[in-house]
Amino acid sequence: MEAFSDGVFSVAATLLVFDLALRPPGSPAEQLWHAWPAYLGYLISFLTIGAAWIAHSAMTDRLARADSLLLRINLLLLLCVAFLPFPTKLMADALHDTSGERVFATLYGLTLLTIRLLGFALDAYARRENLYAHVRADEELQKARRDLLPVVAAYLIAIPIGLALPALAVAMYFAIAVVLVVPFRDLWLVFRHSGPTDHSDDHG
Amino acid sequence: MEAFSDGVFSVAATLLVFDLALRPPGSPAEQLWHAWPAYLGYLISFLTIGAAWIAHSAMTDRLARADSLLLRINLLLLLCVAFLPFPTKLMADALHDTSGERVFATLYGLTLLTIRLLGFALDAYARRENLYAHVRADEELQKARRDLLPVVAAYLIAIPIGLALPALAVAMYFAIAVVLVVPFRDLWLVFRHSGPTDHSDDHG
Amino acid sequence: MEAFSDGVFSVAATLLVFDLALRPPGSPAEQLWHAWPAYLGYLISFLTIGAAWIAHSAMTDRLARADSLLLRINLLLLLCVAFLPFPTKLMADALHDTSGERVFATLYGLTLLTIRLLGFALDAYARRENLYAHVRADEELQKARRDLLPVVAAYLIAIPIGLALPALAVAMYFAIAVVLVVPFRDLWLVFRHSGPTDHSDDHG
Amino acid sequence: MEAFSDGVFSVAATLLVFDLALRPPGSPAEQLWHAWPAYLGYLISFLTIGAAWIAHSAMTDRLARADSLLLRINLLLLLCVAFLPFPTKLMADALHDTSGERVFATLYGLTLLTIRLLGFALDAYARRENLYAHVRADEELQKARRDLLPVVAAYLIAIPIGLALPALAVAMYFAIAVVLVVPFRDLWLVFRHSGPTDHSDDHG
Repeated sequence: MEAFSDGVFSVAATLLVFDLALRPPGSPAEQLWHAWPAYLGYLISFLTIGAAWIAHSAMTDRLARADSLLLRINLLLLLCVAFLPFPTKLMADALHDTSGERVFATLYGLTLLTIRLLGFALDAYARRENLYAHVRADEELQKARRDLLPVVAAYLIAIPIGLALPALAVAMYFAIAVVLVVPFRDLWLVFRHSGPTDHSDDHG
Repeated sequence: MEAFSDGVFSVAATLLVFDLALRPPGSPAEQLWHAWPAYLGYLISFLTIGAAWIAHSAMTDRLARADSLLLRINLLLLLCVAFLPFPTKLMADALHDTSGERVFATLYGLTLLTIRLLGFALDAYARRENLYAHVRADEELQKARRDLLPVVAAYLIAIPIGLALPALAVAMYFAIAVVLVVPFRDLWLVFRHSGPTDHSDDHG
Repeated sequence: MEAFSDGVFSVAATLLVFDLALRPPGSPAEQLWHAWPAYLGYLISFLTIGAAWIAHSAMTDRLARADSLLLRINLLLLLCVAFLPFPTKLMADALHDTSGERVFATLYGLTLLTIRLLGFALDAYARRENLYAHVRADEELQKARRDLLPVVAAYLIAIPIGLALPALAVAMYFAIAVVLVVPFRDLWLVFRHSGPTDHSDDHG
Repeated sequence: MEAFSDGVFSVAATLLVFDLALRPPGSPAEQLWHAWPAYLGYLISFLTIGAAWIAHSAMTDRLARADSLLLRINLLLLLCVAFLPFPTKLMADALHDTSGERVFATLYGLTLLTIRLLGFALDAYARRENLYAHVRADEELQKARRDLLPVVAAYLIAIPIGLALPALAVAMYFAIAVVLVVPFRDLWLVFRHSGPTDHSDDHG
C-alpha cells in the first residue's frame, strides 16, 4: 500500500510543474512575473500534497495490517491527490482571465478540502477497526487531529468567499497550506533550543 | 519486481490527469461541465488501475520467488497499464465527437479486459509453477478469482455493445470498475459491525 | 540506489505513452491505424527499458555495497533511459514524414545501444571491484553476458542499415527487443514441463 | 520520507525529457542540432538532480529518526527539485531567442544554488539535532561538505555573470554539474588500482 501511495503522492507533486508557463504579452521578465498565480497554485498544491503525504506516511508507519476497506479509502484519497494538478491549473489560469475564477477557485478549494477529509477518514477508520500496531500518544497524529477542525473550518469559510472574491479565497488556501506545513511550534522549540540551555541538551 | 511495478501503476494512474481539459465553447462553468466524459474516463481508468494494483500487490506479497517468465508476464501487464491513458483520452474525446466513439470505446474496453486477463494470468502462472510462499486460503486472492469470471463476462458483453451504443458500453465499464473497487461485502460487514455487537468486538 | 533507479525506469517507461497520438487525416479508425510507427516505438522502447530494468534489478539485488563510481555509472545509465522517450517520438514521427527518418532511426538505435552497453558496464564494474555479495553462477547474469555480444552485434548491423533503410533498422530494433524480453528458452522449458512428466513435478 | 523523496527526485529527473524538442527551421538533422541548448539543460539539470539525490540518499541512510522540522526542510528541497524542469526549459528556449536569456539564466542558476543550499541545510540540521544513527567519518558526507564551499562560490560567481553573458553562466553551471557528479578522485584511484598493485588488492 505504501509504495503505490508514495508513488502517486510524489508523481502528482512533481507533475504540478507542468502547470507553470510564461504568460504573454510583454518582455521575458514581465511574462515570468505575470505567471504569479501559477507559482501560487504550485506552492499551495505542492504544500497540500506534502502535508497530506506527511500525515499519510505517519499513519501507514503505524499500521499493523490493512484491510480491504482501508485500501479503498486510500484509493479514493489518491484519486483526489492525482486529480489536484487539474483544478490547480484551472485556478491559476482563471486568476488572470477573471471570467472563470469563481468557478475554478471553488473547485480548487473543494478538492483541497476533500483531500484533507479523506486523509482524516483514513486515520479514523484505521483507529476504529484497530488496524494500528499500538495505540500510543503519537504526537504527529494527535497534531493532525487537533489541526483538522480549524483547517476544515478555514476551508468552509474560504470556499464560499471564493464565489465572490476568488483571489481572497486563494490567498486563504495559501495561508492554510503554510499553516499545515510550517511547524510553528517546532520552530519555536528549535529557536529556544538555540538559546542558553543549548549546550547541556546537545551532549545529553 | 515490486518497486518497478508499483512505479508504473502509480505513474500511469497519476498521468491520467493530463487527459482532463476544459471543453469549449461556453462559459467556464459550461466548459467544465462539458468535459464530463473525461472525468468518467479518469474515474474508470483510475479505479481499474487501482483494482489491478490491489490484486497485483496481494499477489507479489505472497511470492516466495519470481522466475524469468513471471517477470515477462508482469512486463506485459505493465505495458498495458502504462498504455491505458491513451485509449482513455481517445474515448473521452470521442464521446463528444461521436464520429470515432465506436472505435475508441472498443479499443478502451479491450485494453481494460486485457489488463484484467493478464493480472489473472500472472496469478495463474505463479500458482502453476509453485512460486507462492504457501498456498493458503487467502481471501483477497480467492475473491480475485471468484470475481474474474463475471467481470470477463461483463466486458465481453460490453465490448460488442460499444460497436453500436458506445455510451452504454462506457457506462458498463464504469459499473465494472465500481464493482471491482467498492468492496460491497466488506461494507456490509462494517455496517453490521457498527451494530449492537460492536463493543465486544472492539476490545476483543 | 535502487529506489531512485526503479523510479526512473518506471517513469520513463510510463511517459512513453505521451508519444502516442492519432495521425490525421482520415476517419478515426484510419487515424488510429496510421499511428502504427508510434505503437512500434512504444513497444520497442518499453521492452528495451523493461529488459534493462530486469538486468539492473538482478544486479542490484546481488550488490553487497555500492561505491561512488558505481553510483555515477548508474546515473549515466539512467540519464540515457530517461532520454529514450525523445528519440522514440522523433523516430515514430519520422517513419511517416520520411524526410528525417534516417537521422532519427540512427539516433534511436544509438540510444538503445548505449543503454545496453552502460548496463553491461555497470555489471562489469561491480564484478571488477568485488561489489557483489557472492560470486555465484547466477543464471540471470550469465544469460545477460551471453546475450550481450549478439545483441551489440545486431545493433551495430542495424544502425548503419538505418542510414539507408530506416524502416528495416526499426524492424531490427523491434526484433532485438523481442529477443531480449521473450525468454524463448524458458518458454521451451515450460512447454516441456506441461508434457507427460508434469504431474510428478507439480506435487514434488 | 525516503520513498516520497526518491519518487520526486526520479520523476523530476525523468520529466526533463519533455523539455527536449526539435527546433525549426531546417532539415531534420539541423533541427536536431539547433536544439543543443535543450540537451545542455537536460544534462545540467539531470546531473544536478542526480548529485542532489546521491547526497540526499547518503544522508537518509544514516538517519536514526526524522523529526517534524527535518521533514519540512526536506519538503522545501523537493519543492525546488520538482520546480527545476521549468527554469531548465525557459533557459534552453532563451539561449536561442536571446531576448530573455539573461533573466532565465539567472533564474536557472538561483534554482540550482537553492537546491544545493537546501541539501546542505538538511544535513546541517540533522547533525545539529543529533538525528544521525552514529556520527562516523563518512567519506561521502565529508566530501559533500568539502564540496559545498567551492560549489556555492562558483554559483555566486556564475549567477551575476549570467546577467551579462548568459551563455557563459550556463557553461559554468554545466562545469559545476560535471564536477559534482564525476568523482575525479575516485576515478584516479580506480586508474591507479588498475596498475601494477592490482593483483594484491583484488584478493585481499
